Amino acid sequence: MKKKKVVLTETPILQNRKEIAIRFSEVDSLKVVWHGHYIRYFEDGREAFGNQYGLGYMDVHQHGYVTPIVKSVCEHKLPLRYGDTAVIVTEYVNSPAAKIIFKFKIYNKQTEKLVATGETIQVFVDQKGELVLTLPEFYIAWKQKWKQL
Amino acid sequence: MKKKKVVLTETPILQNRKEIAIRFSEVDSLKVVWHGHYIRYFEDGREAFGNQYGLGYMDVHQHGYVTPIVKSVCEHKLPLRYGDTAVIVTEYVNSPAAKIIFKFKIYNKQTEKLVATGETIQVFVDQKGELVLTLPEFYIAWKQKWKQL
Amino acid sequence: MKKKKVVLTETPILQNRKEIAIRFSEVDSLKVVWHGHYIRYFEDGREAFGNQYGLGYMDVHQHGYVTPIVKSVCEHKLPLRYGDTAVIVTEYVNSPAAKIIFKFKIYNKQTEKLVATGETIQVFVDQKGELVLTLPEFYIAWKQKWKQL
Amino acid sequence: MKKKKVVLTETPILQNRKEIAIRFSEVDSLKVVWHGHYIRYFEDGREAFGNQYGLGYMDVHQHGYVTPIVKSVCEHKLPLRYGDTAVIVTEYVNSPAAKIIFKFKIYNKQTEKLVATGETIQVFVDQKGELVLTLPEFYIAWKQKWKQL
Repeated sequence: MKKKKVVLTETPILQNRKEIAIRFSEVDSLKVVWHGHYIRYFEDGREAFGNQYGLGYMDVHQHGYVTPIVKSVCEHKLPLRYGDTAVIVTEYVNSPAAKIIFKFKIYNKQTEKLVATGETIQVFVDQKGELVLTLPEFYIAWKQKWKQL
Repeated sequence: MKKKKVVLTETPILQNRKEIAIRFSEVDSLKVVWHGHYIRYFEDGREAFGNQYGLGYMDVHQHGYVTPIVKSVCEHKLPLRYGDTAVIVTEYVNSPAAKIIFKFKIYNKQTEKLVATGETIQVFVDQKGELVLTLPEFYIAWKQKWKQL
Repeated sequence: MKKKKVVLTETPILQNRKEIAIRFSEVDSLKVVWHGHYIRYFEDGREAFGNQYGLGYMDVHQHGYVTPIVKSVCEHKLPLRYGDTAVIVTEYVNSPAAKIIFKFKIYNKQTEKLVATGETIQVFVDQKGELVLTLPEFYIAWKQKWKQL
Repeated sequence: MKKKKVVLTETPILQNRKEIAIRFSEVDSLKVVWHGHYIRYFEDGREAFGNQYGLGYMDVHQHGYVTPIVKSVCEHKLPLRYGDTAVIVTEYVNSPAAKIIFKFKIYNKQTEKLVATGETIQVFVDQKGELVLTLPEFYIAWKQKWKQL
């Protein structure tokens, strides 16, 4: 019985899966994707997540906020090459802070191997350009909707 | 004698010369600069020209205009490689139209060979977002200053 | 009757249609797609065409050729903004020369308006790095298959 | 006297300082440099360091190695805007591992404020594409030359 209660209060995992074909222009002279492009893949993942869960740039913007990136980390395990398809798995990291945190896993679709992992942290900035240290109301509502509070 | 008079009324050639070192991230899997990056080299050239002659993005903006690109052309003669230095020569093309036209020549500094030529055409858009079909006053003044009228 | 014969010998139009969502990172401080990114959209169009008709980078490469861009042209009619979807229509231009020529039309999917047109010209370079002035055999075969000869 | 001995065995700090003007195309719709471009600024810093100390891509390559990035971190403190000049300070992090580690500090030249910090880690991969777990000889020689051993 207790178990059931616990299950009810557990936060579900919010995740998006997005495929992108590697572009010729993204591959460097070593014939692998240049490492800087992974930051764009993370952004592609965040956008797809935002579209799926209603937390996109436009959603945030219409509530009067922007959410600049304050930190990004990327670790590379294996290269991606032209012709490969990358699978970007974007996972929301629940946190009590006034931040939006995502973890990323990028897989090679063909080999199913993990090629990179990463993380981005965003903060809330209001229309005056001020950093917001408490959760904006719309974000509390969003967290409630998705059982992340 | 007539010749002398003609010379006096000729429009001087306005030209900027800018060097840029090729970046590793700009080179593709064929070990040459990916063709799309030349558009940025042209922008580097335009900016250097704007700084030299007082026709930069900021100069135009403070007079209430933006000057979006409506056409760009790039022709490639030879490749550029990592380690090369590109010399971008940006030349103002005098025209009676309400347009800013530049011609570009990109040279390989080491070999002194011409590697690419190009052209961009910009129009004037005012603060209402409307295309402006007559020369803005500030631009007439600029052309007078540099004897392009 | 004659008409029928004529129809039989006409070259069919080879065309690909590819949709891409505008990325946040592609939009500049004027809130429109920076003009240089259209060159990548053209490349996306060429790749989609290549995949559909068997004339991709890899297809060409396995026959011992690369096909560098020697000219690109882009004309802008209207801006694209974040949130828009671009429709890239890539059309093969039949030519007797040892060149691959494409024409591009980019539409705003939502408004159905034409936002840009363009063209790219590619040449054939063999494994020695030499420009090839006659049609490579594999390309003749490709043209025959698609009735472009 | 002891102090003097200590000084003799201390590793000197290897540092490069490189200025870059922010490009129009690097600024996003919020009028600040898009976060992904900092990865290129770090690469600009690494290249300038490599040129200064003889540890550039070409130096490494001629000894039969490539040094792919396996991790990058970037933390943003303040935005950079069009018109700003960024000062990239690249510092070599001495480590016993078969890795090349750099720390970066990016300053706004005008305000002299720190706008971003970062780190990249590179590994050695030999001509067979194998990860090298011991210090390559040329790298030992390089470390000796610069008193980093």
